[in-house]
Amino acid sequence: MNFSYQNQTAIHFGQGQIAKLAKSIDKQHKVLLAYGGGSIKSNGVYQQVLTALKDHAIVEFSGIEPNPSYETTMKAVELVKEENVDFILAVGGGSVVDGCKFIAAAAKFDGEPWDILAKNAPVNAAIPLGVVLTLPATGSESNSFAVVSKLSTKDKFAFGSPYVHPLFAVLDPDVMKSLPDRQLTNGIVDAFVHIMEQYLTYSVNAKVQDRFAEGLLLTLIEEGPKVFSANDDEVRANVMWSATMALNGLIGAGVPQDWSTHGIGHEITALYGLDHAQTLAIILPRMMSEMRKEKQDKLVQYAARIWGITEGDIDKKIDQAIEKTESFFHAVGMKTRFADYNLNEEVVDALVAQLERHNQTAMGERQAVTLERSKRIIRASL
Amino acid sequence: MNFSYQNQTAIHFGQGQIAKLAKSIDKQHKVLLAYGGGSIKSNGVYQQVLTALKDHAIVEFSGIEPNPSYETTMKAVELVKEENVDFILAVGGGSVVDGCKFIAAAAKFDGEPWDILAKNAPVNAAIPLGVVLTLPATGSESNSFAVVSKLSTKDKFAFGSPYVHPLFAVLDPDVMKSLPDRQLTNGIVDAFVHIMEQYLTYSVNAKVQDRFAEGLLLTLIEEGPKVFSANDDEVRANVMWSATMALNGLIGAGVPQDWSTHGIGHEITALYGLDHAQTLAIILPRMMSEMRKEKQDKLVQYAARIWGITEGDIDKKIDQAIEKTESFFHAVGMKTRFADYNLNEEVVDALVAQLERHNQTAMGERQAVTLERSKRIIRASL
Repeated sequence: MNFSYQNQTAIHFGQGQIAKLAKSIDKQHKVLLAYGGGSIKSNGVYQQVLTALKDHAIVEFSGIEPNPSYETTMKAVELVKEENVDFILAVGGGSVVDGCKFIAAAAKFDGEPWDILAKNAPVNAAIPLGVVLTLPATGSESNSFAVVSKLSTKDKFAFGSPYVHPLFAVLDPDVMKSLPDRQLTNGIVDAFVHIMEQYLTYSVNAKVQDRFAEGLLLTLIEEGPKVFSANDDEVRANVMWSATMALNGLIGAGVPQDWSTHGIGHEITALYGLDHAQTLAIILPRMMSEMRKEKQDKLVQYAARIWGITEGDIDKKIDQAIEKTESFFHAVGMKTRFADYNLNEEVVDALVAQLERHNQTAMGERQAVTLERSKRIIRASL
Repeated sequence: MNFSYQNQTAIHFGQGQIAKLAKSIDKQHKVLLAYGGGSIKSNGVYQQVLTALKDHAIVEFSGIEPNPSYETTMKAVELVKEENVDFILAVGGGSVVDGCKFIAAAAKFDGEPWDILAKNAPVNAAIPLGVVLTLPATGSESNSFAVVSKLSTKDKFAFGSPYVHPLFAVLDPDVMKSLPDRQLTNGIVDAFVHIMEQYLTYSVNAKVQDRFAEGLLLTLIEEGPKVFSANDDEVRANVMWSATMALNGLIGAGVPQDWSTHGIGHEITALYGLDHAQTLAIILPRMMSEMRKEKQDKLVQYAARIWGITEGDIDKKIDQAIEKTESFFHAVGMKTRFADYNLNEEVVDALVAQLERHNQTAMGERQAVTLERSKRIIRASL
C-alpha cells in the first residue's frame, strides 16, 4: 500500500539527556512549562528541567489530568494567550503530551476549539511543542495525535495534525525508577496494544512492518515483567524505546490498521473512569477471538512468531495465542475483566449506546466491528 | 547507550508517487535535475519527473557516475553557481544521491570543497535536496552521509552533515522493473551489509535495534532472491523499504557500529574499480570469521535467529552462519572472492598499503581490526 511517512521529532535518548533542553529550545522563546500532578517534583525531573532552562522565560501550568480534559486544557489556552507564550514544553506522560498538543492547536485556532475534537475542524497552525517524557506508554511524544475528553458530556475524542508533532522528545529511562507499578503496567499494556492495532489486521505481505511490530512485541514480552523489580538500565531503556517506536508511524506505514479495541476502550474510560490501558486489556482478548476469521492469517503468524505456537488446528492455535496474550497482561500486573473493576452486566447496553451515539458502528480495518459484534465482545469480557 | 536521533526525510512510498514532486518542491525554486547515465530516460522516470515539474524552472546535469567523483561533481557545483540553483533533485541510485549531497554542500562551502572529504571540514550550509530513488541499495535517500571519490588520486572518502539530509525521497518500487540484474544484486547485498555493520558488534542488549536489524535481514533473505524474476509488486516493495530502513539511522541508534568491511571495501573499489557491493561480499564472510571472538555473542544470535542454527559448538555455529551468508550472496547472483574478478595475491600488499595510507589501521567497533588482521582477511578472501 502506498504511504507517505515523515517523523520530524528529534529524539534525545538516555540518562541525563534532560540537559539537552538548554539547546533544544531557542532562548528567545517564552516557554509554557506544562505538567500534571506533582510527581515531577518528587522524582527530580522538575528540578532538572528548571536547571536546563535557567536562562529561559518560563510560565508554569500544572494540573493536566490523566485523560486530559477540554476543561483543564482550555484554562492553559487562556494562560498561553495572556502571557504570549510561543513554545510549549510538555513534561509528563501521554496525557500531558496530548493535553499540550490540544493547547498548542487551540491557542492558534480561529473559532471554537472544541470543533477540533468534535467536528474534525482542520488545524492550520499551532504553537511549537517539545516533550520531556516521564512515562513510556502512548508514543505521543513523537507522533501527531492526541486524545482529549470533555468531562461535562463524557465525550472522548482524538485529533491529529502535523502542526502538533513534537519538535523534540527527551527520553530518559531513569524517570521510570520512581513510577508507581500501576503506571508501569499501564505503559507496557498501552504500547503492546498500540502495536497490535497496527499489526493484527489482514495481511498485505509488508514484511518489514510485520517484523518490526513483532520485534517490539517480543521486547515488551521479554522486558516488561522485569521492569518492576529490575535495577537494570537496559530493561528500562528497552521498554521505553519500544513504547515510542510502537506509535511513531513507522510500523503502521503502508499497512491497514484496526483501532477498534481503542474505540470501545475510550467509551469505557469516558463512562467508568478506568485507566486507558485497563480498558484495552479487557477488550483486546475478546476482540481477537471475535475477529478470528477476518484476522486469521495474522493471528496464526502472531501465534507462531511471538509465542512459538505451531501445533494444532487453526482455532486451537488462535485460542492459545489469546490465552498467552492475556497471561502476559497478568504477568505485568494488569487485570483483564470488567468484573475485576466491579463492573457487571449493566455496562453492556450502556457502552453500546455510547458507541452508537459516537457513530462507532463499523470499526476496524474492514469496518467489520458492528454494534452487534461490539456488544458480543463487551459481554464476553465481563 | 545514549543517542540523539532524528530523520526529517518525508518518504513518499509506492507506485505513482513521483507525481508528489509537484507539491514537494516549492515553485519558486530553481531546480538542478541531476542524474547519472541515460537509464532514467529509457525506463520512463525522466519523463515522469519532467511531467511532475512542468511548472518549475529546471537546469539539468547528467553524468554522475557510479562511485561519484569529485571531478564530475565539481562541474555541477560550477553550474549550480552560474545558474543560481537553489534546490537539487537527485534522480538515481545511491551514487547520484551521494554526488548531489556533495554538490549541495560544496556549492555553499567557503574554501576548498575537497577539504570536506579529505579533512572533515565542517559543513555549515547546503542547498536543499530531494530524491527520486531509482535503485534501492544505499539508504542515502534518507540519511546525512555520502561517499565521493577523487579519480586522480584513487581516494574514496565519506562525509556527513545534517544539512545534506534529503528533505524528501520518492520511493516507487516500479523503478526496479527495468533495473539490470547486476544492480539489483548490488542493491540487495549493499543493504544486507549495511545492516550487518550496525548489528554484528558486541552486544549492548538493545533488543529493539537487534530485532529490527534481524527483521530487515530476514526480509532481504526471503525476498531478495525473488526480485529478479518475480512480477510481484510486494517483493519489490519489501526489498526497497528494507534498503531504506537499513541505513536511515534507526537500527544504528544507541548501538556500537563496525564499518570495517566498508573500510576495506572502499579501498578495493578505489584500486580495482569493483562495484561497492561486490567488495563488501568479498570481505564480509572473512571479516566475520576473523572477528569471531570479539563478535561471538552476536554471531551466535545471528546464527540462531536468522538461520535457525542452534546445534553444535560455538565455532561450528559461527562457521555455518558464515557459510549461509555467503550462500545467500550467491543466491542473489553475487560472487564472493577476489579470484572471481581475476584478482590474485598481488592485491594483498596493495590494499594494505592503501589502508595504511588512509590511516585505517584500527577499524571496527573496538578498533580491533588492525592492519595485520585486515591483511589476513584480504588474503583469506582471495
